[in-house]
Amino acid sequence: MKNIYLRIEYDGTSYFGWQRQQNAISIQQVIEEKICDVTGEDVSVIGSGRTDSGAHARGQVANFYTNSSIPPEKFSFVLNTKLPSDIRVKESKEVPMDFHARYCAVAKRYTYSMVLDRHGIAIGRYYYYNIKEILDIDNMIRGASIFQGTHDFKAFMSKGSSVKNTVRTIYSSRIISEHPFLYFDIVGNGFLYNMVRIMVGTLIEIGRGKLTFLDAAQIIKKGDRRLAGPTAPAHGLCLEDVYYTEEELFSNIL
Amino acid sequence: MKNIYLRIEYDGTSYFGWQRQQNAISIQQVIEEKICDVTGEDVSVIGSGRTDSGAHARGQVANFYTNSSIPPEKFSFVLNTKLPSDIRVKESKEVPMDFHARYCAVAKRYTYSMVLDRHGIAIGRYYYYNIKEILDIDNMIRGASIFQGTHDFKAFMSKGSSVKNTVRTIYSSRIISEHPFLYFDIVGNGFLYNMVRIMVGTLIEIGRGKLTFLDAAQIIKKGDRRLAGPTAPAHGLCLEDVYYTEEELFSNIL
Repeated sequence: MKNIYLRIEYDGTSYFGWQRQQNAISIQQVIEEKICDVTGEDVSVIGSGRTDSGAHARGQVANFYTNSSIPPEKFSFVLNTKLPSDIRVKESKEVPMDFHARYCAVAKRYTYSMVLDRHGIAIGRYYYYNIKEILDIDNMIRGASIFQGTHDFKAFMSKGSSVKNTVRTIYSSRIISEHPFLYFDIVGNGFLYNMVRIMVGTLIEIGRGKLTFLDAAQIIKKGDRRLAGPTAPAHGLCLEDVYYTEEELFSNIL
Repeated sequence: MKNIYLRIEYDGTSYFGWQRQQNAISIQQVIEEKICDVTGEDVSVIGSGRTDSGAHARGQVANFYTNSSIPPEKFSFVLNTKLPSDIRVKESKEVPMDFHARYCAVAKRYTYSMVLDRHGIAIGRYYYYNIKEILDIDNMIRGASIFQGTHDFKAFMSKGSSVKNTVRTIYSSRIISEHPFLYFDIVGNGFLYNMVRIMVGTLIEIGRGKLTFLDAAQIIKKGDRRLAGPTAPAHGLCLEDVYYTEEELFSNIL
């Protein structure tokens, strides 16, 4: 028995998220079916975490156990011949038996992509959230920096989550402006349900002048979801990377 | 009667090119239909030129004549409420009656986007031509520069064109490497049928070592299509800009 690590890119436009579910197609299900096609085994693929319906990933990580004789490094090539073009396995390798894509993750990086354009964009429209108003980007930059540190992010969690401990550490939280594109780049040791999308919704309210950047600190302190901004749409969100060692994490945020 | 200028972005993935034709959906047809919806007039929309089936545009320019009372600057907003999300009018304005999007064009800029990745990409797969081999990018940079100047580009024209004069002036021709992405950026006073895509196919052969960069000069000189590389696929191609004055042209290539 071997434990196989997969690094996966996907365009989530046509899927109901990562997680396998009844009556709706998920990325996890498609990958499990293709692994079954090539190994004959019914496997469970363990992802580093869920991603939302319509959200994307450039660096989702998953693992599965197999008795197949396919060389671990060849799984990426073999699976890519079977997978649809909106899911690509970028790397496969053998990892120790105790590697678990979710429990062993030290941190994750997400980006949220926006385009500031009165008319919207045609090319890449499934990857950018279109904002038609003019935003105060300097204030959004200041607001984003307030998320850094170890805080209780209860105000940035959607209802429907059973998570008890809502304290998370954000190592890096930045707004990057490349006009007309605007990116939110965040690295943290974990993320609550819809946390990045609510942070983005809040930063946009700051950009619009509906909230001040100092309000971001008050919202964290008060822990009230109603004070934060709306949940930004899923299609701007992309899971960029999952880090499994502190070394990997800190070499990527400095 | 007014002459209205439109600057148009489109994702060409779902269309059989710009040009209206029987039995296949084109971008021109969709725009003409939406103008009819809002003005009640049967108009002909004149594009700066055709684009291929599956190719894209960020800056296609077109014009049409109308008696509508819609303010010229509002056409973009009005049409965007009717158009599908893969076609966006980015700007509309009144221009002199003798402005003709095709005949008045002084030059055009195209980009061709590639991604160098053994496994391909999921996100943006309709906008990048995936190349799995390792390429010698320095030789491609040298090859691209050879296209600059006024030459007979007969060797870079697909069969089926009735064009007699195959001399064109290329003002700028560059390879830009942003690993894993690779871009070919070209500005010229006109382009023959499939010219950019054959140039890209030739540059890729140079990158692969099948041709030397000096061969590019010999291929131009000999004017034989069979010596040039294959026609690269349409989905990497994007019409970025059409220039209508020399000032506009030269301020964009310096």
